[in-house]
Amino acid sequence: MKSIVLAEINGPLRSIEVEDPAPLDGHVLVNLRSAALNHRDVWIHQGQYARLQFPFIPGSDGAGFIGNDPVVINPGMNWGANPNVQSDAFDILGMPSNGTFAQKVLVPESQIHPMPDHLSFEEAAAIPLAGVTAFRAVVTQGKISSADRVLISGIGGGVALWAMQFALAAGAEVWVTSGNQTKIDRAVDLGVKGGFLYTDPEWTKTARQIGPFDLVIDGAGGEGLAQIMKIASPGGRIVCYGATSGGVPTFSPHILFWKQLRLLGSTMGSPDDFSSMMKFICLHKIVPVVDRIFALGACAEAYTYMEEGKQFGKIVLQIPV
Amino acid sequence: MKSIVLAEINGPLRSIEVEDPAPLDGHVLVNLRSAALNHRDVWIHQGQYARLQFPFIPGSDGAGFIGNDPVVINPGMNWGANPNVQSDAFDILGMPSNGTFAQKVLVPESQIHPMPDHLSFEEAAAIPLAGVTAFRAVVTQGKISSADRVLISGIGGGVALWAMQFALAAGAEVWVTSGNQTKIDRAVDLGVKGGFLYTDPEWTKTARQIGPFDLVIDGAGGEGLAQIMKIASPGGRIVCYGATSGGVPTFSPHILFWKQLRLLGSTMGSPDDFSSMMKFICLHKIVPVVDRIFALGACAEAYTYMEEGKQFGKIVLQIPV
Repeated sequence: MKSIVLAEINGPLRSIEVEDPAPLDGHVLVNLRSAALNHRDVWIHQGQYARLQFPFIPGSDGAGFIGNDPVVINPGMNWGANPNVQSDAFDILGMPSNGTFAQKVLVPESQIHPMPDHLSFEEAAAIPLAGVTAFRAVVTQGKISSADRVLISGIGGGVALWAMQFALAAGAEVWVTSGNQTKIDRAVDLGVKGGFLYTDPEWTKTARQIGPFDLVIDGAGGEGLAQIMKIASPGGRIVCYGATSGGVPTFSPHILFWKQLRLLGSTMGSPDDFSSMMKFICLHKIVPVVDRIFALGACAEAYTYMEEGKQFGKIVLQIPV
Repeated sequence: MKSIVLAEINGPLRSIEVEDPAPLDGHVLVNLRSAALNHRDVWIHQGQYARLQFPFIPGSDGAGFIGNDPVVINPGMNWGANPNVQSDAFDILGMPSNGTFAQKVLVPESQIHPMPDHLSFEEAAAIPLAGVTAFRAVVTQGKISSADRVLISGIGGGVALWAMQFALAAGAEVWVTSGNQTKIDRAVDLGVKGGFLYTDPEWTKTARQIGPFDLVIDGAGGEGLAQIMKIASPGGRIVCYGATSGGVPTFSPHILFWKQLRLLGSTMGSPDDFSSMMKFICLHKIVPVVDRIFALGACAEAYTYMEEGKQFGKIVLQIPV
């Protein structure tokens, strides 16, 4: 089968022929039609993960056929028994196990979900990792309600856009932040009330006038998180699913306890989160935001495009039949 | 009536005769028998509060009689309609309104609770502010269960000791931290499994071997909170009710999201928290830890004693009949 094989850190992302995966009890072979990139793939390529094992086929997100049935793969494996947190055995498809940037992938049967009727393979491949991360953050941890005013930071990334779509579908009033006005404008086109340019040093002042925000979904951390605590509603929830801006140098426990804020860490999602998300997507007929589709053979270009960070939505790979 | 009247920041805490409070619709007059100190009283005395109005009678905690009925006063007034957070109108008895360091105090009828049968006035006066703060932190926000391994920081203070007693009564395994081995030993005498001397730079190593901790109750903040996030269980809850050590310079959102921690701010308690706490104290026949009893006239000595920070339990004032 055709596949992308990564042999070393920062190695070339070439499409080569490899053996089909060997059958395995309890596992199924998915004939992939589409895959999608996550930042995780770029970080693994750059060597920014522990437990790297080479060579391997990258890719966590995929949609394809089992027989004649269109399916989506849940890439989160071995979550464990505790709904509150993943176990030590938790693994994500695409490292160390071989992933979806290939014509075929072997996964445990329990990871398979029917593909939503209203989506194409390219759209369905944009769901798994970003979708479940956003769903757990917004619904499971954030317990969104239609009465909430919601703020989503860093709009344009896969998780942030899914968070926006889930929050809009839940009937909430949604606001976003970005370093890029065009991305804010596009989010407004998709239904959010407005946005704040975080490169403007006065943005929190404006946000304070419009807010406060009952629920904040943040993947950045950094000093921005300290600002977010100031514009969050008293009794509000802040869900943190990432820390691309690093630590929070001026973290104030005083604001935390006086405003009785709930700061909720969230990452990936459990099998229940994934099932609930798929139902939610079907119920609300949500169509993922796909930024650009590359051919599998142009995988290296897709990685470079993601590293540039200009995308608004998922970067998808089309798998040749 | 005899009362302590504070006329200015850092002013003398003298016992003087003042007029009895004038009757007011919807209010009741409590003939106080006992009162108790909180750090709040010391901070107000030092001028560390906004909205100070002089002269006034300090004191938030009190127990006494209405007619022949022994009662305890809930000092938290005007909480508001949202169970998640106090309203802007929230007030605590003893500033700006006149408090409990007097023979009589006038409070809204809704603040009155029957005094538990198994307690003396001195013990009952040790309940209100510290008790409800701890109850909300441990039960309402922390959702303690008997399966939890609990860590309570800074044992010896009023809230920390109440948190310890509530956690023990809930059947949890309880550990404490302190800067003082004698306080740890006393907590062990009261039923905790053991403690960690946070002046030992290796304390988190030891705690990591014994932990992790499913629920942490912290009133200190500071760098200690960053350490606590490391020894908390994945999926664990950390309730922050204070920040005596200030900000957290190395706050890591990465630990927060990867371990899916829940960092829950909590302060004081709602009327429901107070009622539930009183029931819990009666059900489990909890007897508060009283460190020392001063006469009302020796109020200044009681303040100095609290400022020294050597107490293990509440500092109580006996009100002359």
